[in-house]
Amino acid sequence: MLSVKTPDEVLMIIEKEFSASDLCEEVDISEASGRILAEDVKSSEYVPGFDRSSVDGFAIRAKDSFGCTESIPAILKLTAEVEMGKEYTDALPKGCCVSVPTGGKVPEGADSVVMIEYTERYSKDEVAVIKPVAPGENMVYKGDECIPGQLIAPKGTLIKAQHIGVFASLGINKLTVAKRPVAGIISIGDELVPINETPSDGQVRDVNSYLLSAICKEAGCIPRTYGFVKDNEELIRELLKTAISECDLVLISGGSSVGQKDATAKLIEEWGPLLFHGIAMKPGKPTILGKCGNKALVGLPGHPGASFFVSKIFVKAIIDRLTGRKGSEHFVTAVLTEAVPANQGRTVYTGVSLEYSNGKTYAGPVQSKSGLVGSFTRSDGYICVPRDCEGFGKGTEVKVYLF
Amino acid sequence: MLSVKTPDEVLMIIEKEFSASDLCEEVDISEASGRILAEDVKSSEYVPGFDRSSVDGFAIRAKDSFGCTESIPAILKLTAEVEMGKEYTDALPKGCCVSVPTGGKVPEGADSVVMIEYTERYSKDEVAVIKPVAPGENMVYKGDECIPGQLIAPKGTLIKAQHIGVFASLGINKLTVAKRPVAGIISIGDELVPINETPSDGQVRDVNSYLLSAICKEAGCIPRTYGFVKDNEELIRELLKTAISECDLVLISGGSSVGQKDATAKLIEEWGPLLFHGIAMKPGKPTILGKCGNKALVGLPGHPGASFFVSKIFVKAIIDRLTGRKGSEHFVTAVLTEAVPANQGRTVYTGVSLEYSNGKTYAGPVQSKSGLVGSFTRSDGYICVPRDCEGFGKGTEVKVYLF
Repeated sequence: MLSVKTPDEVLMIIEKEFSASDLCEEVDISEASGRILAEDVKSSEYVPGFDRSSVDGFAIRAKDSFGCTESIPAILKLTAEVEMGKEYTDALPKGCCVSVPTGGKVPEGADSVVMIEYTERYSKDEVAVIKPVAPGENMVYKGDECIPGQLIAPKGTLIKAQHIGVFASLGINKLTVAKRPVAGIISIGDELVPINETPSDGQVRDVNSYLLSAICKEAGCIPRTYGFVKDNEELIRELLKTAISECDLVLISGGSSVGQKDATAKLIEEWGPLLFHGIAMKPGKPTILGKCGNKALVGLPGHPGASFFVSKIFVKAIIDRLTGRKGSEHFVTAVLTEAVPANQGRTVYTGVSLEYSNGKTYAGPVQSKSGLVGSFTRSDGYICVPRDCEGFGKGTEVKVYLF
Repeated sequence: MLSVKTPDEVLMIIEKEFSASDLCEEVDISEASGRILAEDVKSSEYVPGFDRSSVDGFAIRAKDSFGCTESIPAILKLTAEVEMGKEYTDALPKGCCVSVPTGGKVPEGADSVVMIEYTERYSKDEVAVIKPVAPGENMVYKGDECIPGQLIAPKGTLIKAQHIGVFASLGINKLTVAKRPVAGIISIGDELVPINETPSDGQVRDVNSYLLSAICKEAGCIPRTYGFVKDNEELIRELLKTAISECDLVLISGGSSVGQKDATAKLIEEWGPLLFHGIAMKPGKPTILGKCGNKALVGLPGHPGASFFVSKIFVKAIIDRLTGRKGSEHFVTAVLTEAVPANQGRTVYTGVSLEYSNGKTYAGPVQSKSGLVGSFTRSDGYICVPRDCEGFGKGTEVKVYLF
């Protein structure tokens, strides 16, 4: 049997063994939110394409306004009106101004825009400026957003609204994104019944098919459930074979503890190398990872509370590798309101709820028992107590990873 | 003209003026992730439905193991084997044990489970326990997850994977959730061209239709775009009428600054009260909110960079009211690497990127000009400098709201 790995070792194994699939697809930018870029996106244009005003006002040469005040305004000749969306190519003569709306083009020769609030219209073609402007004031220059050849978003970027905004400004309306991996989900256990049935004594509902589907969806996968199966080698082998042929990764929950009917590890090994058998974490120890080509075969604990953490952390890491997603998770720093003991040799993961008081953020550990997932509905995130520490005392500053 | 409101006043106005729509729909739990509960969900059962073991081992009376050691083990009579999913109703006699797999039923009379690792099988019906267990050890009791009548998730909860896990364990496979509000999106501006066209001098692409759609989608809405229209009162009136009849809220971007062609405020007022005209924020000042029944009519700045912040904060707040979503946003505490000046009288919103070094989190302000959305693609979140402060100096500890 392979040795148990630490959580950090597991992340390194995932990083080493799985890589971004070549499978990608083209999507319209209106459908691209939440997807992962499969190529670098570069600008081929200047954005904005011309110098623009960021206010309603008058484009001027800044030095024509120097020294002006309310009592001694600078009087400039109004030579034209720039209209939105209309071409305007005349250069601005000295001592003159043109009116410009917000977003309008600032003509050549002008280097700043004075806000309409700081002007007075003396006559049809005379404008008095009562407050000087600095060169560049109220201007957005050609290329301020981007210039041709500039990298806008690298391959591996999780696409958010702000990316879509920039892509639209560049005229990019199609994007090549990673295909969503298909995650096959199989539950194993003689005790399982469908969720719409009432379990008899000793039976429980098949929670993991639903829980793992939802986690996979949140991580950017398409879940495909294969239902649950009795803890019988032949039945599991058959289902696993189908799932491997149809999916990019397969999650098998249950049947992976050191019980007498453990077939999962053996069955996974029939398809390729077993990368480890056991993670030094609590909850979640009886976790198996195997590999069949670039497909991950994951044996998860049957307890929903344990398979929850393993999936949120390690299955998500696998999915990120398959889609090529780059970028780190952020965390909230908080002060523990209660001690959280360590567990000899195993990294402990615990749900916490956050509270704010007197400008400080506090994390309260949420009681949970290994098998139960309910405590996480009352948690805002989780903390992780390393295996080599003595636990965290009350008042310790901890990192909280948000759910 | 109505007075300008502060961001806090705007949030209070939204809270007061808009309420959760009665419109809800029933969805299967496999489709419920990311939706908002429209009813309290209570348990009608005990979960687990019976006392369970959390390990592979032997169910015993704890006191039968007290004082045992490796050299002087407690010898117990093995009377039965509990099988997964099988009913087991016999009570455990004193001085006896039954073998129980992980998740198996612990029989009446037993109060703990000793892990198989701390036992030795002396004969077919004799088990030696070499380490004492405490009462309750390795047990998950009936009702530990929930009991009948217990509130599992209140109305207004954003449904996540962990909720779906608990619902499945209770046999709840349908949920009543808030309908996703439909957000109508209209862009106004004589300067706009479709994003697949190359703008001539003075023109720009219609970024906001795409940017606002993506923000609305991220906030749980269904965006419905109406394209862009010239800054012409009649044309806008017509489009607004259609959008109001088809949508739950309408976002009109552009045409809301104090320029000469401003028709948005007037047009919004034709449908109901104008709640404010202007938010004391930077960027984003020229924002209008009107109300037509429970429908929000929002006039947003034309500049994508400004409409981005207004939408991320205030349009999202409106959407949360319409869906009845409860719960607060969490933030990351970080140390500013550069000063961020305040703006007289206006709350300043600035994108920041996070970096980690020596156990500390640092926030670096990302330079941006009002009109541009690109800076937010390089930001992890944003900070907010209150209007009544003198700005944040380098080294100030700030709250970062993640994108």
